[in-house]
Amino acid sequence: MYVVILAGGSGTRFWPLSRQRSPKQLLSVFGGKSMLQRTVERTLPLSPKRIIVVTNALQAKETAAQLAYLHDPPVDVVVEPVGRNTAPAIGLAATLIAQRDPRGTMVVLPADHYIRDEEEFCRKVWTARESALNGYLVTLGIAPDRPETGFGYIEADRGGRGVAPYPVTRFVEKPPLETALEFLAAGNFYWNSGMFVWQAQVILEKMREHMPLLSASLARLHFTCECWELADLRPQIEALYGGIDSESIDFGVMEKADNVLVVPASFGWSDVGSWSALADVCEQDECENVCLDAPDPVVIDAHRCTVHGAGKQVALVGVDDLIVVETADALLVCRRDRAQDVKKVVEVLNRRGRQELL
Amino acid sequence: MYVVILAGGSGTRFWPLSRQRSPKQLLSVFGGKSMLQRTVERTLPLSPKRIIVVTNALQAKETAAQLAYLHDPPVDVVVEPVGRNTAPAIGLAATLIAQRDPRGTMVVLPADHYIRDEEEFCRKVWTARESALNGYLVTLGIAPDRPETGFGYIEADRGGRGVAPYPVTRFVEKPPLETALEFLAAGNFYWNSGMFVWQAQVILEKMREHMPLLSASLARLHFTCECWELADLRPQIEALYGGIDSESIDFGVMEKADNVLVVPASFGWSDVGSWSALADVCEQDECENVCLDAPDPVVIDAHRCTVHGAGKQVALVGVDDLIVVETADALLVCRRDRAQDVKKVVEVLNRRGRQELL
Repeated sequence: MYVVILAGGSGTRFWPLSRQRSPKQLLSVFGGKSMLQRTVERTLPLSPKRIIVVTNALQAKETAAQLAYLHDPPVDVVVEPVGRNTAPAIGLAATLIAQRDPRGTMVVLPADHYIRDEEEFCRKVWTARESALNGYLVTLGIAPDRPETGFGYIEADRGGRGVAPYPVTRFVEKPPLETALEFLAAGNFYWNSGMFVWQAQVILEKMREHMPLLSASLARLHFTCECWELADLRPQIEALYGGIDSESIDFGVMEKADNVLVVPASFGWSDVGSWSALADVCEQDECENVCLDAPDPVVIDAHRCTVHGAGKQVALVGVDDLIVVETADALLVCRRDRAQDVKKVVEVLNRRGRQELL
Repeated sequence: MYVVILAGGSGTRFWPLSRQRSPKQLLSVFGGKSMLQRTVERTLPLSPKRIIVVTNALQAKETAAQLAYLHDPPVDVVVEPVGRNTAPAIGLAATLIAQRDPRGTMVVLPADHYIRDEEEFCRKVWTARESALNGYLVTLGIAPDRPETGFGYIEADRGGRGVAPYPVTRFVEKPPLETALEFLAAGNFYWNSGMFVWQAQVILEKMREHMPLLSASLARLHFTCECWELADLRPQIEALYGGIDSESIDFGVMEKADNVLVVPASFGWSDVGSWSALADVCEQDECENVCLDAPDPVVIDAHRCTVHGAGKQVALVGVDDLIVVETADALLVCRRDRAQDVKKVVEVLNRRGRQELL
């Protein structure tokens, strides 16, 4: 088994803690290890042969530095010269794996997700792998616990067979609330988590079928016997990305392929898509406050506040439902239900030409 | 005329910006000069012979440093070894003045008040001085514009004479709201601002009458002809403060004396007693936000917030009625109507032994 971690996200919604060069996956938002490091370590019980981390040029150095402590299995950092969404990144990783080990299975994971129950996560990957070895494209579908309108959904055909994995009927884009409520009630809809398990040669086959242009470009990569020496590949990767389109694996392959299964999963998952989502997966005090990097905060009548204190003495007095984030050069104060609007702040700073703050 | 500035306050309500060694009066909360410097400069049109600043040992060095740029008139910094409220500080200053210039008038001013209309302030002091020269104790009473329960009030007898100053009928402690509403409606009640004008020898006379112990202690001070060399006086001042009680000039003299007048004043006054009071006297944006030391803040749907940003990029998203103060070692987030509770934070830190934060 090979692990492929997609680590190129920019994470503007975690500004000012996240920046272009230090997006969410490279931050230790929970204290200690970064989300990328946690994602990698979470896969070690799967005993992968190699771990391939796909990132971008801005983040490559820090990504490699964060993973330098890992030696077994080997970790390869593949650098995309520009981001082209998930399909090219996955195609490139699949090509690298298939060239060495065509029947090798690959587990594709976003670098910046939270998973509470890591043992259950591994069990679900093993379940998915069995089907992957039989030629299926398998996705992990998160059993929804609320009518979330911020995720895509996967409809499973639970009629035909009693046990998972189930055949996938369709992929659904982020739904309006009414539809999300129906999905939740129906019981056979799952959140599309972006976690996949398949054989390298199977996904490449499906790319040939549904993404012939990308497939042809990938086929032109030329390997020597030192193919894992990625430095040698860099010029070829640069050339590859100069000629391919941006596309998601969902739209490019998953929604079109006929051999897709879903493994329902409930292992305490969050995409940690905003400061308010972060609060949900962090340790909270008895008033639901989360104080990160804020030792011994003074909390007087404060509720549901999330504070990143940059090590300072934090004091909260009579405030509710806030997100307060302080860094060396910026201070964000945001109402919790407006966390999605943090990216607007980044847009304003971008328009003002404040590159040093992005 | 002599100016006496009382500058020994600790200002815990402006934590974390104010600290024991840098209380409110030593801060440049409005940008630029400190409140002490502004208070001193406000008196220069009065052409005082000398300016006497009474402070405490913790703040003496910074106080002297902030006033070192002033040469004409001379500025004396008198250091109290311990704070004993206003009566001893005023008695000491009056003794220093009377020893040189018994009929000299002194204007007593707190160091940490805001006054918008400085010309009107000077006019009112001149008005008060006329009565002071006739042997009265004159206080500046602020015409109230709201039923404030946080100040003491002065009742004026406006019946006897048509023009100010008016005789003072009584001093009233901080009233409950109902009483404050009555005072506001009555029209002859004024806020006790702690600003006084009198002759040095008159206040000393009244101290002999109403505060005999303090008066006797002050009378033991021994002056040489170099009496303004305050360094020589330090041992005597230390001894003086070892033997006197803590008392306010209001309770010790003003409430008991029979020759007190009040000059009503409306010059845009605030005691700047809390972070929320500060916001009222600062420049606000169109949504009533005040951003201090926060260049070019990004403000998205925020109202009535006061932020001290320590020079950082501040961003406010969807938040109302907050006080946010950041310093090198602390971050305060407080609901605006809880600004009085900031001192509770200081109490908690004190109990925890966090001296470095006080």
